[in-house]
Amino acid sequence: MTIHQTIKVAVDAVVFGYRNQALHLLLIQRKLEPYQGGWALPGGFVLDNESLEAAVHRELSEETNVTINYLEQLYTFGQPNRDPRFRTVAVAYYALVKPEAFAIAASTDADDVRWFDVRDLPDLAFDHAEIIQHALQRLRGKLRYEPVGFGLLSEKFLFSDFEKLYATILDKPIDRRNFRKKVLSFGLLTELNEKRSDGKGRPANLFQFNEDQYFKMKERGFYFEL
Amino acid sequence: MTIHQTIKVAVDAVVFGYRNQALHLLLIQRKLEPYQGGWALPGGFVLDNESLEAAVHRELSEETNVTINYLEQLYTFGQPNRDPRFRTVAVAYYALVKPEAFAIAASTDADDVRWFDVRDLPDLAFDHAEIIQHALQRLRGKLRYEPVGFGLLSEKFLFSDFEKLYATILDKPIDRRNFRKKVLSFGLLTELNEKRSDGKGRPANLFQFNEDQYFKMKERGFYFEL
Repeated sequence: MTIHQTIKVAVDAVVFGYRNQALHLLLIQRKLEPYQGGWALPGGFVLDNESLEAAVHRELSEETNVTINYLEQLYTFGQPNRDPRFRTVAVAYYALVKPEAFAIAASTDADDVRWFDVRDLPDLAFDHAEIIQHALQRLRGKLRYEPVGFGLLSEKFLFSDFEKLYATILDKPIDRRNFRKKVLSFGLLTELNEKRSDGKGRPANLFQFNEDQYFKMKERGFYFEL
Repeated sequence: MTIHQTIKVAVDAVVFGYRNQALHLLLIQRKLEPYQGGWALPGGFVLDNESLEAAVHRELSEETNVTINYLEQLYTFGQPNRDPRFRTVAVAYYALVKPEAFAIAASTDADDVRWFDVRDLPDLAFDHAEIIQHALQRLRGKLRYEPVGFGLLSEKFLFSDFEKLYATILDKPIDRRNFRKKVLSFGLLTELNEKRSDGKGRPANLFQFNEDQYFKMKERGFYFEL
């Protein structure tokens, strides 16, 4: 059986990181046409013998040197004209990066890999702006149904980091007192007997995730009205 | 730029229908190798110039003649050895069918298209059993976060149909009194001044969806503890 089909398969990765109380996204500058010099999601064509996830890991390692903490398939983009060269079906993934890995990635190849604040993205190659919108929407949706910060925060963090992560992802202000009360009522965070300053106010207690409760909530599902 | 890649792209559709208070799934019997004579999801290779969604509609029309009511991308399956002929990446969709369309489909080509009760599926070709598990999981997850029955029930239905749809998808008994109280409190269903019998008990009032409330709930999101 011969299938006459000239479609190519690629993977693209939307890699989110959280630093300086802002949500960031990892982009690379394209060396080749099309969109030479333009900014794009890291990614590339899948090799004949590797799984889709292996292709994502390989491309991220080749292009960005970033260490990701979480990877999930997002959506497959297959419009016939999304690549001007030939038809490419892109299986998009979304990935989360801890602040530690964040710093490393940015320092390796600063010329053509860079973290961008999601509120201030450059023009993007192909349909990557659409893929990013899709990923942001997924991330926003997840906030309501599962605890998300785990993949993006350091082991220990200030409550203000956690709160601003939510405000940033939702892209809207949060009723702070109400938010704090709700989050603490979930039993998802453990308050530590250890203080740190956020650089502005008085030192405040650090928090960490209660992993047991985290995985329980993830499995059972919940709805967090935000 | 030449990309040396021999991967083919296909679509597969998990088509759910609900009849006789049981969740059903549409399967076709394969005419060709591999898995000749075996049961499989409807689907096939994407043409060079059609979108992925168009390919799903074309394959469903060619193979099953079913009219679907709702279509959503499910997940992309890309393990290198999932097709014994050559590497095929399958973009799987899940679709819902109204009972009316259900009957038509089953009567057109009964030899090689058939509805199966999801609790009693035959052996399946390729990794289609895995794709179906994924679709069932998605459907179960959706029950908690959005009103689902809209895509599967007739315009007017008995509350017992609605309840059994939930019990079937969840594959577990439901606390009936509690379920009815909760569902009615959502304002999602409108009780009509019209009766029908389910063939066993006394005639009961028919219900229909309140579309306004349906789309409001879908947009806002909610959590239905089941």
